[in-house]
Amino acid sequence: MINVGLVGANGYTGLELLRILSQHSEVNKIFFSTRSTEKDKTKQLIHSFSSKKDLYPVTSKSNDLDKCDVVFFATPHGVAMKQAAHLLKEGVKVIDLSADFRLKNPSDFKKWYGLDNPEKKLLKDAVYGLPELYRNKIETSNLVAMPGCYPTAVILGFLPLLKQSMIDPSSLIADCKSGISGAGKTPQDGNIFTEVSENFKAYGLAGHRHWPEIYQELQGLLLNNAKQTAKNLGILFSPHLVPMIRGIQATLYCKLKKSFLDTDIQKLYEKTYISEPFVDILPEGVDPETSSVRGLNTVKIAIRKPQIDKTSTSSYLVIYVVEDNLVKGASGQAVQVMNIMFKLKEKTGLDLFPLVP
Amino acid sequence: MINVGLVGANGYTGLELLRILSQHSEVNKIFFSTRSTEKDKTKQLIHSFSSKKDLYPVTSKSNDLDKCDVVFFATPHGVAMKQAAHLLKEGVKVIDLSADFRLKNPSDFKKWYGLDNPEKKLLKDAVYGLPELYRNKIETSNLVAMPGCYPTAVILGFLPLLKQSMIDPSSLIADCKSGISGAGKTPQDGNIFTEVSENFKAYGLAGHRHWPEIYQELQGLLLNNAKQTAKNLGILFSPHLVPMIRGIQATLYCKLKKSFLDTDIQKLYEKTYISEPFVDILPEGVDPETSSVRGLNTVKIAIRKPQIDKTSTSSYLVIYVVEDNLVKGASGQAVQVMNIMFKLKEKTGLDLFPLVP
Amino acid sequence: MINVGLVGANGYTGLELLRILSQHSEVNKIFFSTRSTEKDKTKQLIHSFSSKKDLYPVTSKSNDLDKCDVVFFATPHGVAMKQAAHLLKEGVKVIDLSADFRLKNPSDFKKWYGLDNPEKKLLKDAVYGLPELYRNKIETSNLVAMPGCYPTAVILGFLPLLKQSMIDPSSLIADCKSGISGAGKTPQDGNIFTEVSENFKAYGLAGHRHWPEIYQELQGLLLNNAKQTAKNLGILFSPHLVPMIRGIQATLYCKLKKSFLDTDIQKLYEKTYISEPFVDILPEGVDPETSSVRGLNTVKIAIRKPQIDKTSTSSYLVIYVVEDNLVKGASGQAVQVMNIMFKLKEKTGLDLFPLVP
Amino acid sequence: MINVGLVGANGYTGLELLRILSQHSEVNKIFFSTRSTEKDKTKQLIHSFSSKKDLYPVTSKSNDLDKCDVVFFATPHGVAMKQAAHLLKEGVKVIDLSADFRLKNPSDFKKWYGLDNPEKKLLKDAVYGLPELYRNKIETSNLVAMPGCYPTAVILGFLPLLKQSMIDPSSLIADCKSGISGAGKTPQDGNIFTEVSENFKAYGLAGHRHWPEIYQELQGLLLNNAKQTAKNLGILFSPHLVPMIRGIQATLYCKLKKSFLDTDIQKLYEKTYISEPFVDILPEGVDPETSSVRGLNTVKIAIRKPQIDKTSTSSYLVIYVVEDNLVKGASGQAVQVMNIMFKLKEKTGLDLFPLVP
Repeated sequence: MINVGLVGANGYTGLELLRILSQHSEVNKIFFSTRSTEKDKTKQLIHSFSSKKDLYPVTSKSNDLDKCDVVFFATPHGVAMKQAAHLLKEGVKVIDLSADFRLKNPSDFKKWYGLDNPEKKLLKDAVYGLPELYRNKIETSNLVAMPGCYPTAVILGFLPLLKQSMIDPSSLIADCKSGISGAGKTPQDGNIFTEVSENFKAYGLAGHRHWPEIYQELQGLLLNNAKQTAKNLGILFSPHLVPMIRGIQATLYCKLKKSFLDTDIQKLYEKTYISEPFVDILPEGVDPETSSVRGLNTVKIAIRKPQIDKTSTSSYLVIYVVEDNLVKGASGQAVQVMNIMFKLKEKTGLDLFPLVP
Repeated sequence: MINVGLVGANGYTGLELLRILSQHSEVNKIFFSTRSTEKDKTKQLIHSFSSKKDLYPVTSKSNDLDKCDVVFFATPHGVAMKQAAHLLKEGVKVIDLSADFRLKNPSDFKKWYGLDNPEKKLLKDAVYGLPELYRNKIETSNLVAMPGCYPTAVILGFLPLLKQSMIDPSSLIADCKSGISGAGKTPQDGNIFTEVSENFKAYGLAGHRHWPEIYQELQGLLLNNAKQTAKNLGILFSPHLVPMIRGIQATLYCKLKKSFLDTDIQKLYEKTYISEPFVDILPEGVDPETSSVRGLNTVKIAIRKPQIDKTSTSSYLVIYVVEDNLVKGASGQAVQVMNIMFKLKEKTGLDLFPLVP
Repeated sequence: MINVGLVGANGYTGLELLRILSQHSEVNKIFFSTRSTEKDKTKQLIHSFSSKKDLYPVTSKSNDLDKCDVVFFATPHGVAMKQAAHLLKEGVKVIDLSADFRLKNPSDFKKWYGLDNPEKKLLKDAVYGLPELYRNKIETSNLVAMPGCYPTAVILGFLPLLKQSMIDPSSLIADCKSGISGAGKTPQDGNIFTEVSENFKAYGLAGHRHWPEIYQELQGLLLNNAKQTAKNLGILFSPHLVPMIRGIQATLYCKLKKSFLDTDIQKLYEKTYISEPFVDILPEGVDPETSSVRGLNTVKIAIRKPQIDKTSTSSYLVIYVVEDNLVKGASGQAVQVMNIMFKLKEKTGLDLFPLVP
Repeated sequence: MINVGLVGANGYTGLELLRILSQHSEVNKIFFSTRSTEKDKTKQLIHSFSSKKDLYPVTSKSNDLDKCDVVFFATPHGVAMKQAAHLLKEGVKVIDLSADFRLKNPSDFKKWYGLDNPEKKLLKDAVYGLPELYRNKIETSNLVAMPGCYPTAVILGFLPLLKQSMIDPSSLIADCKSGISGAGKTPQDGNIFTEVSENFKAYGLAGHRHWPEIYQELQGLLLNNAKQTAKNLGILFSPHLVPMIRGIQATLYCKLKKSFLDTDIQKLYEKTYISEPFVDILPEGVDPETSSVRGLNTVKIAIRKPQIDKTSTSSYLVIYVVEDNLVKGASGQAVQVMNIMFKLKEKTGLDLFPLVP
């Protein structure tokens, strides 16, 4: 049984971690912190989730965290980097849901987040927590940087094609749409009901922080791929806001190389992900919808060959991806990573059911 | 003063026509039909809209329509084609909001709508009712085929670049998102609240009926453009459903030709549309949202140069377009066309205000 | 033609005033202020609404306001009370949408709003701006306090019965439901999309500020009614939040006195409101829905006799009322009041159409 | 381990039963039927829910059902009454989520549902499946009629007061609001997104089928209560539709008898429900919201003393109740009943967590 720490239990990803960890058969005690000012909320959290687990409210720097087997950070950027070294020294594994250890190049982190991460050594050691890409490294790592919600969908969508060097990597497009919970819990002009409901908008094309993260990982795929000769990555990331609470949908556009025009892409995807417990390749013709993964750790993917002119020789390929941004896009994937780090069955505690309707 | 007929007043585009025509200063009487079974709804319509105009319920083939100056068809596909010839013979102008006269090639219509249009001569004469493209032809036409909601957004978004032959026409992408009112008023598995709310999905990539319409018009632009040497059009149209009532957003992707990489595209768009009463080019940095055009006949457009790699030489261009699918995407544009046909000031009756919030 | 001032144009009631006044045929210039920090929003407002009127941004205490014929205050509580005296001295009529002059008893205002209103004399002179109740007084007044959104619905719903002394006034119940725009535009924990959407809740039963306002006006009706012998008012006001932007629905419960059990209440309501331009009594059997008044200045009312036991002698009566909280519940009614003050036709500028769907 | 049959797995209550039963530790095999025409949906259901249980699609009258330990009916009214006798004869327990066995008086059933229930003997034996009221009878019953969603909330809300004879039973009011999933899955004019979203309406006051059910149970409480002398029940049931998927909120109004004006009602409720696993009495001052029970089998209740006049002697009491209409209002409560029938721990399989946000 694992004792778990959770710094930042009151945000949406923190709450979702509590929901999942409370149902996890291998989790023993949960020590969690909220902002010091929120005593009432703490009580409420314990009340809501304590039916199956012992929950212990602690301060965010409590010694109790040192005695945990693993500590999750569901905190704003800049918090985990300050506490990780100490915890690791105490033998505690760290799973960080913030961006502190995502970008390998410190100057990228500085540029996109305005912060310096003083832990250069840790940054180097940290593993990017996408199991489908780095399962082996995660198994032996003590510090994992969880992917952003958009990058999870985009990377898993392009992965099979990039691995096989089947597409032109210089002109990838990811048109992504997210529910509002991705914007967090802090009230702002842009997330109040009256402004968001009955509204749809694009945003952040010029500089969304998930772009450098997607870029880093897709370029890594190119560089590590011997079959791939063209190494110039171009990835256009275009996020939008949908008037709903949960869910991310990504529509991915790319061009097949001529030699692969006749390849059965459906089969390629099915084969690539055949042993993955949380990636579903949909049968041909089924359009994935975000409601089908509400509350689940599953990513659903569908493949389409679009018509673009009167002939049928189009080399374009369209990949649809849906996920729950708070589960596979954040807290569910973090628990999946924990399972891997502790050599548990990967689905432990993640055998969830969608809330439909 | 104009006497107006309206066949199909009870659907969403019919209702929207009533809303706009009832406030139109140059409209005199309105003769409207609904499905014969809907007597109660007819009374309700008259009650709702009769404060400013005389409204007369008629049957869909009433002689009263013959005495109108213009008849709008807000009907399912296949209705207008049967009545247009007779009305035109009687000297009545016809504005058709269905697809009957949109596709110039009868075999395309057969393929995509499963219907034969027997009126080959009329089909040839019919003008595609996009004022920004065919204003002169509309002025002298008696039969206008109104564009679909998606095509209006997509064509107006690409128009300035295609006119100037600035982009590679073989790889255009239109990632479009629509509110549910676009699916009409007939109850179906796919449009009930419990299935649509808190849900986002792609659909119809393989065969949406608006694709051939977009294709026809964009290819027309290529063929009629002397500056344009490459004539091979490729347009990928990718529609999605948003859990909201009204609004269409289009995110358009294209590649600038090298010689235009330094062109001020913002200025190009402003210049192209400077005299258009219903196209707003947004200032740089403003993200268009669908709620800003709710109830309006205005299309809002913004231009973006996205980052796709570490350098800044990307030739990609992203165009955002928003419209109200029921107004500029249907009934508002139909009234704009009526104004042009009758030599009225184009904004008559369309000087609407958004309902915000 | 009237020159209009508007202090507080950036809130939801301010915006709605701009929307309506911009379309008003008897309004000439509009001088409006927003918070000093919101220059961009000001530009946007002018851009959105200036097609029909000259709009002039001014500071909230500008001399330009002194030259207006009327000034609207769409401001937080406590602002209008400070500026009203000066404007009135300059001969400017004042229409206040805040609560400053609603409660006749200064200690009530102190108790419920925590503020002293130093203008005791003005408070006495101010007329409560519900045209259906105080039209004559409004005509000759220079200072009108506009009713709150809930009180408008509740008072109009009970009015015919209280006027005729038909119901027991000691046990009235108003179960009211409001869209979120009633909570204003300031981001708060309670109005962000993720907390409001897919959620319904009661609130404020113990102390909503609209209770004393409803109480004051209904008690006034009792006291001024010679037919009414029982003078003990009891009114239970129970507000709820609905996950929608606009709209208020009130379900009103009361008990008919025995002598009126056979009275045709439907006719009574129709007769009471027969000359009212903005009160619609629905035909029997039609359930009023908030969407039917979206964007309108109309209140719709329906009357029901509920079954409460196995017999049919129930003396209970249920009244349904729907209104748009931002129009008849605020800005539309304020323009109606302006029309009365300036002896215009009462529907001028208010002949609006619902945005359906 | 229990083998379970489920007739009608494709409706919303059927789906919810699958969700809950699939996670239930004491359930072995699940045999389920859907409408014969829906083979694709059946496959999908198995795919979605088969990770933890063996699911077997059967026809609605399959012999496999005879071998089950218990069969749930999540069917339209009129189905269970035809199959119950046979199953009971085979020794199978029956839990019916339809209305077939709810109303004890056959003429009431005929009047409100237009059907005759030929199984008079079974009707007499059937137990109304509200555990908080009939736990003992449920334990020994083989045929349970599950309560409607509204009645569950209303009865549990009034129960403590009626048991103690503290309120005037002749003037109870239940103002109830429900999400749209209560209207089921069949597309209708009244449940499509464009008509429901941004809309709130009352409905069915004159004749909602849940009224006679509430009446029967509350009157039963009166009649069986020796302390209660006044036996005349009056209950006004007033339902409304909320633009959300899940959730019911009830605001209950009643009048305390004078002798109980000083009773601590909060304590009464806490005491009454202290051993109930699925009824939460909220601390004073907390307003219950439907989102807090989304996906849960819990009912949350709060008690309020409202101000109705200037004094504080009001005898009115307001009770707020929230539940998830598909869980405690239907399928969750049905599983709770199954647990009782099979002498399992009552929370087995119902230790669910809310999906928040």
